[in-house]
Order: sequence, then structure tokens, then C-alpha cells
Amino acid sequence: MADDYGAFVPGMRFRIEGRGGGPLTGLTFAAKDLFDVAGYPTGGGNPDWARTHPVPTKHAWAVQTLLDAGAELIGKTITDELSLGIMGENPFEGTPTNPRAPGHVPGGSSAGSAAAVAGGLCDTALGTDTGGSVRVPASFCGLYGIRPTHGRIDVTGMMQQAPTSDTTGWFARDADTFTKVSAVVLGEPVAAALPTRLIVARDAFDFATEETVAALQPVVDKLGGLIGQVSEDMLAPSGMANWARAQRTLQPYEAWLSFRDWLDRVNPRLQFNVARNLASSAAIPESERGWAALVRQEARGRMRQLLPAGTILCLPTTPFPALRCGEPLSIRDPLNNQITCLCAHGGLTGVPQVSIPGATVNGRPVGLSIIGARGSDATLVAVARALAEKG
Amino acid sequence: MADDYGAFVPGMRFRIEGRGGGPLTGLTFAAKDLFDVAGYPTGGGNPDWARTHPVPTKHAWAVQTLLDAGAELIGKTITDELSLGIMGENPFEGTPTNPRAPGHVPGGSSAGSAAAVAGGLCDTALGTDTGGSVRVPASFCGLYGIRPTHGRIDVTGMMQQAPTSDTTGWFARDADTFTKVSAVVLGEPVAAALPTRLIVARDAFDFATEETVAALQPVVDKLGGLIGQVSEDMLAPSGMANWARAQRTLQPYEAWLSFRDWLDRVNPRLQFNVARNLASSAAIPESERGWAALVRQEARGRMRQLLPAGTILCLPTTPFPALRCGEPLSIRDPLNNQITCLCAHGGLTGVPQVSIPGATVNGRPVGLSIIGARGSDATLVAVARALAEKG
Repeated sequence: MADDYGAFVPGMRFRIEGRGGGPLTGLTFAAKDLFDVAGYPTGGGNPDWARTHPVPTKHAWAVQTLLDAGAELIGKTITDELSLGIMGENPFEGTPTNPRAPGHVPGGSSAGSAAAVAGGLCDTALGTDTGGSVRVPASFCGLYGIRPTHGRIDVTGMMQQAPTSDTTGWFARDADTFTKVSAVVLGEPVAAALPTRLIVARDAFDFATEETVAALQPVVDKLGGLIGQVSEDMLAPSGMANWARAQRTLQPYEAWLSFRDWLDRVNPRLQFNVARNLASSAAIPESERGWAALVRQEARGRMRQLLPAGTILCLPTTPFPALRCGEPLSIRDPLNNQITCLCAHGGLTGVPQVSIPGATVNGRPVGLSIIGARGSDATLVAVARALAEKG
Repeated sequence: MADDYGAFVPGMRFRIEGRGGGPLTGLTFAAKDLFDVAGYPTGGGNPDWARTHPVPTKHAWAVQTLLDAGAELIGKTITDELSLGIMGENPFEGTPTNPRAPGHVPGGSSAGSAAAVAGGLCDTALGTDTGGSVRVPASFCGLYGIRPTHGRIDVTGMMQQAPTSDTTGWFARDADTFTKVSAVVLGEPVAAALPTRLIVARDAFDFATEETVAALQPVVDKLGGLIGQVSEDMLAPSGMANWARAQRTLQPYEAWLSFRDWLDRVNPRLQFNVARNLASSAAIPESERGWAALVRQEARGRMRQLLPAGTILCLPTTPFPALRCGEPLSIRDPLNNQITCLCAHGGLTGVPQVSIPGATVNGRPVGLSIIGARGSDATLVAVARALAEKG
């Protein structure tokens, strides 16, 4: 366990070689156990999922794409059950160790992928991000992580949770690897040109702890120096709490639709809070969903207005670094809400986001995120690379 | 598994000898995994319960009482998680086989105790009954089973669920053993005198399937012949559905109070429907609980009026025999409601009830129950014995 940070699903370490002579030849990767790997069960973080689904015969699109580019797959990593969690605590398969903050959660749901990369077990790893599942572990484990523009990456063979928010993402320890992998999965070269305007999201920073704001300030300053023109603005003038409420209405209800037939048929074992949240999602009234759909439209409009080409916005990826493992739900639940409040814009509007490492609070990593207009994924990666090169 | 009907908690078969020369010397018994046995973890049907509670150093009162009377304890039996279920399906430890109806559920939550007795692995077994957890498996497995007067049997060392409804109960295959064990646990000889008036609960029979009513008719006729005066009446003129609703308000809310601190601290693994029901119990409003408490008072008054000394009432223990294993929740939940509707009077009013075997529907057992005034436990056992002796 200590050797591999408990990052891999038990029994799911193996080696599948990549195609020779590709842009990622020489790199290794792991896949979150939400991605199909031909011949291995897709577990989804729950012992009753694999048992009740056929073993896939085809690799997921993202797995195949990395293999085709030359990377070698070394195993499947632990996820929060059904990707329904952002702490990374899995009582069935074990909670991966956070290599950068032992005793603290790795963040989830792409917990094992983040732990494997942060622990140096592989160069990159596939995750998924619906409500923060790449961004949160990237922040907590001190990694580069991307949530691409929603709908841009083919999600074939990726277990779905809430389709209108689900995305494929990936992690890396260094900007160079992050850039290489991003170019392959995005299918677009990462050009040198950078945005010319940076917005610092005042309302988002207001959600972070003072220590986190202070820790991120040097990275923000450096980013501002790189971009040039810096201004402050609100990400969500109508309220980040309202955006979060809308996302936490739409996403869980979609998750309920995704899983209800399986829950009915299998009555699976689940962690209490996962089952509790699914059950309460079933009861979300149409009136609340109707309101949330309108908020989503407004939020998308706000993003178009706020982020024209050449403009990016920065915000704390998470309001604080990783929590201690095993906190009671009465402590965790409100903190969970605060974290997802800083993530809600992703699922709600579909804009791309890159989390950049570089700050720590009491020795524990916390990330700075940049977002841009839909489709600006490669530009965000270029910013992350340029920031690293600036040294 | 096939040899022992999967009745015992894995690893929990052992032997603790009873005191020599007692009234139960020569008999063997098993204890539901809700009863403390010194030196063995009390699991409560859930892998995270034992892990988070100390191993008991003292036998539960009921266990000690049977040992003192000479019976030998042979192991601990599988229960629905936290006793929150009446089907007997446990995905963590396995669902005991129903020895009398293979492929069908044993009934729960005292599932393993019923399976062990029905399968001839022991002579008697301890169960608990809060909302039907002895009565339902007694009916489904074709056993004698008793839910004693609430508050009569010392519940020290028995894991609590809903204290104002929780009782200790027990099973036997034959009337003679049932009588012997009952005399010991009740601490009262089972006299020969029988009640003189039998009420057939018309409204309760209306909840049973036609096949079940037909199958039980010969037992009802024989019982009527034994008692003498027979009449029809309503068990709950204000509605069995209302009684059931009241019980399903009071009991789950008490269960929530019993388990909420543990759920918060441990965030345990649970079967989806168990977690779902606990979560929804947390949301039961005070107004609903207030109504339910009034219905409980009325029901207790009704029982006092209906069941003076010398009068017993009979009803189907369950509305039908055991369901097939693995039915989806959408099928099970409404059937579950029908079953608990026939059980609600127990927790609501605290009257004693004995389920008597003897009928089958398509080869599967179904029980006839008799209830009497609070404290008439031994009289009900005497009726069961006399009915068996009548041949």
C-alpha cells in the first residue's frame, strides 16, 4: 500500500504497451476505473458495479488515444463510488494516500489517478470531471489538471454520471508532460500565443480561506505579469451560491437518472453519504430543476460576456487544501459544499479549466485555476506552460 | 454454504456450553448478531459496525438466560443490516437460504436465526422483532416464533434499533421446544388453561392474498374448534394503513436517532435501500411524528378494548409466503409495505404475538398469528402447544 499510495484498484495493475514511435512514447499512464479497458472490468469504484456489468471488449476513446500516441497503460485507479464524491475516500477499495499531504484526503473522484501521478508511479493519468473530480484532486495533490470544454472530448467508453456536465480530464506533475498529453487528447497543438487580459475573480477568492488567498497571491502576481492586463471582476454577479445551487440540482438529478435503474435492480452496497445523496436527488422537484436550468442559461451568457477570445479568468481551484481523512460527515458536508461552489461554473457552463500547482498552505498543496472561453483549452495549457517556463 | 444454509455470520460458528442440569439441557441455540456474546464482536449485519464498536465482555441477558437454562450456543446468525429489513437479504455476509423455500428469501431481519432453526442446525434461536423481524421469518420459514410483550424481556446487550418497539424473540420448529424455551425466557410456566374467545381479524385477512387466506382457513378452523367462541371483528377500525403509517413514522425516526451519530462519524457502507430509508427517516417532520404518536395512543386503547383476558385474535402473519430472492426494489418496496402493514400493531401497541406454522401456498410456508393482551405471552404459547397436540 505504502509503495503505490493505494492508488490502484486492487488487482488492477497491468501493462498495455502503447504504439511505437508516437508523441507520448516513453510515457506511462493510468486510467480511472470509470474508463473501459478491454478485458478488464470497469468497476466505477463500487464492488457491485463490475459484478453487474459485462467486461468491456473495447478500450475507451481516451485510453485508445493515449495508447495510439505511444503511452503505456499501467493500471486502473481508484475513484469515489460512481464518481459521486470529491474527497477520494473509498471504503470498499481503500482511500488513496495523498503523496503530498499524508493523512489528508487525495481529493476525488479521480483520487487514484491523482495519487498515482503525484506519487511518481506514472507520468499522466486519465480522470473525469463532472463537478470538480479532476480539479479538486489536482489542487489537493499539487498537480496540473484539466477539465476540457464540455462536449469536446469523445466520452465513448467512459462511465457516465451526469452527461450534460461529464468531461474527460488528465493530470501531470510537470508542465511539459501536461502540454504533450494535452496536445494529443485535445488533438490540437499548444501554440505559443498567450491571452492578453487576466480577470481575477473577486467573488471566487472571497470563498477561499485567508491562508489560501495569501498562498496563491504570488502565483496570481506571476500570472498577471505574464498576461499583461489585469483587472478584478465577479465571476457570478448573481451569486456563486446560486450557481452552486443550480449545479447541485441539475447534476445530482442527472446522476439519479443515470443510476436509478441499476439501484432498483441491484440494490447495491454504497457508502452512506453516496446512497443518501442519490436518494435525496430522486426527490428534487421539477420546479427546482426548472429554476436551475434558467440559472444555467444565465451563467452561460455571463461566461460569453466575461470571457471573449484573449481573456482568461483566475480563481482558487479549491477554497483550502486537503482535509484530514475520516472527518465526520457533519464536518465534511459543509466543506464539500464550499469546494463544489468553486467548481460549479464548470458543469454549469462547460468552459475549460486548468488547475496549476505551485502554492501550499501549511505544507499542503492548493491550486490556482484559469478558465477561458469554450474551446480555449489549448490556450489555457499554453498559459500553464509559459508560467512554468517563467520559473 | 449449502450445508449450513448460509445462516451463520462468516467465522461466527463456535460452541459455548450451557449450565448442566437445566430445563433446556440438551438443546442447542444460535443468537442473531444483534446479541452480545462475550469475546465475539457484535456485527449487527454490517461490516462497519463491528469495526467501530468494542468487542463485548458480557453476554446479552437473553443469551445468558438460555445458557443458564442449559442450552448450548453454537454461533451467531446473519441479520439484515442494523435490523433494518424484513426480507433477510444481506449483501455483505450473504442471504441465508430459506430451507423451506429455496430460491426465496428467508425473511428478516432475524434471517439466519430462522434459517438455522428451519434447517435443523439448532433447536431454537434468538431473534429481535421491532417491526416484524421475528414474525416475518417465522412465517416464511414455517416456524413457531414469538414477539413478546414489549418491555417484558430484558434487552440488555441487544443492539437497539427503535427502543419503543424493540423486542427479543425466539424460534422453534416444534411446539414442545417452543414451549420449553418460552417458559425459560418469559420466566413463567406455560399453563394448560386456554382463552375462551377467538376474534378473526377481518381487516387483516383482507390484506392477505386469496391463496394465503385459503391456505390458512384450516388452521383458523382448528383454532376456532380449540377455543370455542369465534367471532369476526376489525383489528384497526381506523385503518390498518393508518396504523402502518404511524409505525413507519415512529420506528424509522427512532432508528435514525439510534444510528445518526454513528452514520455521521463512520459514513458506513450500507445497502442502498437501508441508507435511503435512514436518510429519508431523518427528514420525517415533527408534525407527522405528532400525528403518529396520537395514532399509537388510539391503537393501544383499541387493543385494551378488543383483547380482554381470555380473548385472543388471529391474523395472517404475512399477507403471502416468501418472495423470490433478488427482486428489484420497485417490486419489493410495495410488498414490503404490505408485510409491515400486517406487523405494525406489534410495535405500535406492544401486544405479544405468536406465529404458528402449518399452512403452505404453492409449497411455501405462511404463518397464522395469534395476539392477546399485554402480558398474555404464555397463554399464546399454550394455544400454540394445544393446537399442535390437537394434531
